Amino acid sequence: MGLDRAATKPHEQLAQHLANDLESVNALIRQRMASRHAPRIPEVTAHLVEAGGKRLRPMLTLASADLCGYGGAFHVHLAATVEFIHTATLLHDDVVDESQQRRGRPTANLLWDNKSSVLVGDYLFARAFQLMVEPGNLRVLDILSNAAAVIAEGEVLQLSAARDLKTDENVYLQVVRGKTAALFSAATEVGGVIAQAPEEQVKALFDYGDALGIAFQIVDDLLDYQGDSSATGKNVGDDFRERKLTLPVIKAIAAADEDERAFWKRTIEKGDQRDSDLEHALDLLNRHGALEATRQDALGWSAKAKAAMQALPEHPVRQMLIELADYVVARVS
Amino acid sequence: MGLDRAATKPHEQLAQHLANDLESVNALIRQRMASRHAPRIPEVTAHLVEAGGKRLRPMLTLASADLCGYGGAFHVHLAATVEFIHTATLLHDDVVDESQQRRGRPTANLLWDNKSSVLVGDYLFARAFQLMVEPGNLRVLDILSNAAAVIAEGEVLQLSAARDLKTDENVYLQVVRGKTAALFSAATEVGGVIAQAPEEQVKALFDYGDALGIAFQIVDDLLDYQGDSSATGKNVGDDFRERKLTLPVIKAIAAADEDERAFWKRTIEKGDQRDSDLEHALDLLNRHGALEATRQDALGWSAKAKAAMQALPEHPVRQMLIELADYVVARVS
Repeated sequence: MGLDRAATKPHEQLAQHLANDLESVNALIRQRMASRHAPRIPEVTAHLVEAGGKRLRPMLTLASADLCGYGGAFHVHLAATVEFIHTATLLHDDVVDESQQRRGRPTANLLWDNKSSVLVGDYLFARAFQLMVEPGNLRVLDILSNAAAVIAEGEVLQLSAARDLKTDENVYLQVVRGKTAALFSAATEVGGVIAQAPEEQVKALFDYGDALGIAFQIVDDLLDYQGDSSATGKNVGDDFRERKLTLPVIKAIAAADEDERAFWKRTIEKGDQRDSDLEHALDLLNRHGALEATRQDALGWSAKAKAAMQALPEHPVRQMLIELADYVVARVS
Repeated sequence: MGLDRAATKPHEQLAQHLANDLESVNALIRQRMASRHAPRIPEVTAHLVEAGGKRLRPMLTLASADLCGYGGAFHVHLAATVEFIHTATLLHDDVVDESQQRRGRPTANLLWDNKSSVLVGDYLFARAFQLMVEPGNLRVLDILSNAAAVIAEGEVLQLSAARDLKTDENVYLQVVRGKTAALFSAATEVGGVIAQAPEEQVKALFDYGDALGIAFQIVDDLLDYQGDSSATGKNVGDDFRERKLTLPVIKAIAAADEDERAFWKRTIEKGDQRDSDLEHALDLLNRHGALEATRQDALGWSAKAKAAMQALPEHPVRQMLIELADYVVARVS
């Protein structure tokens, strides 16, 4: 990391470098979330879109297009598309998970109701598809509609896999690709496609987004067991209490003896949890080196993301994306 | 109606005429609702898709393409797209309305849960967009993604308008276009577009679908107050009990004196309903001729649909579509 950048986080550097484009994206989002007939739509959307998210996904599209020398205006449409798909997914996720908080504020399903979250999410999906049609690029449409299908499939898979002790690392990876990496990789890939970058660069952008998204999600799952709750905004053990089979637990179960298996079966599969169970779970995770192995996996995916960048041309944005891949795992390095 | 057809309903004539295409649509639907990773998806989808719906919407696409002399294969993709959008909408509607029955069977939200209905609905939306991209026709994408937005917007509008006594016939029409007519008109329009029909025929197909959808929904709302429950599968007064402001009630409220307004305010807006209220409501609807005026509106939209067909060429399918416009209002004629 260059000395002059040490004070700034890489996503902030990107935001600064892409400030004009990001402003266009925000303007387009505000314009397209309007509804002449149903004021409920912009109310619900604004609550989420303007809650101070980092706009990480749309920035990946803008950055990828910029890195490949794109000179047109349609990367803005695609970035807004990506943010709309993300926002729609969050609205539906919060209904499915019965969440009460998101980005430090009450969720839309709590402030309004589940109906509004479901239907406004549908509206944003439809608006996303309208936006992605506008550049008139069929390959972009193919990539983004595929991503939307993978996202939904991952979410459904998670419904059945979440509390099933048979869930292995392969299934976990499919779920993670669905819930996080598919939109990251689509975001970077369409940036390259719209810029008509050479095929190997497009492929590298896909690989970068895929690996970055997976690293991002693994870190999230790891911090749930060893994070500083004041920094993560989550309590240690939330996933355990919600009986989610994340990577650390999957690794611990793979190494479990009979007694330990019975413990995981009771606490995760049956949901019969007692006061000291979280402590015992953490003990098992440490005993089998599951947290350390998970950490190594996250670092491995981050390294893959950085390696993919080698196929892209020298460019200030390339350096920022490399630093971003370091940054997403910095909290566990 | 020709004598030889008197025994057959027009949608059955269409199904017979389009049998090969419909079989291709069904095969494509089965293929695309599969999910390698999440078996819950085809389970939930099959429950609804194979429950014996009439496939009215996909038939409209096939019929329109046929009527305009289309010789390709992509009308099958577009018809399957239309059915997927319809199915996704039904899944989400049943969650929003907390419905327990659909097509005479328990709803998916009841058999599985709301989560599955929301996420499988999202999956089908995404699959619909994948399918519609395949013909590579940008105008088709524009029409169908617009329709998806109008549908979602209409549903959100209905949330706020349903129990609001200020809802007038214009708002009602917007809601009806969203919940029903937008997909009908998109279904017919894309059939013409994919067949590269002349602009005036495409416009006429849109107008036909729009008017047919509106007539269809008005009849549905009318039958709720005067239908034969053994034929409609609904009880008389369901909409009243659910406090829905449909066209008959909107007309009665527009003609209401002060006492009557207070009655509607109490029963619909506040939801304070007593035993004899439905009877009184029916009395008011008849006193102001609201049911008869609603019936006339439905017949008017049916006539508009038939008139639009004049711009299309002589063809057996044209006659069937004309008879279909008669058929949707036959139960109130």
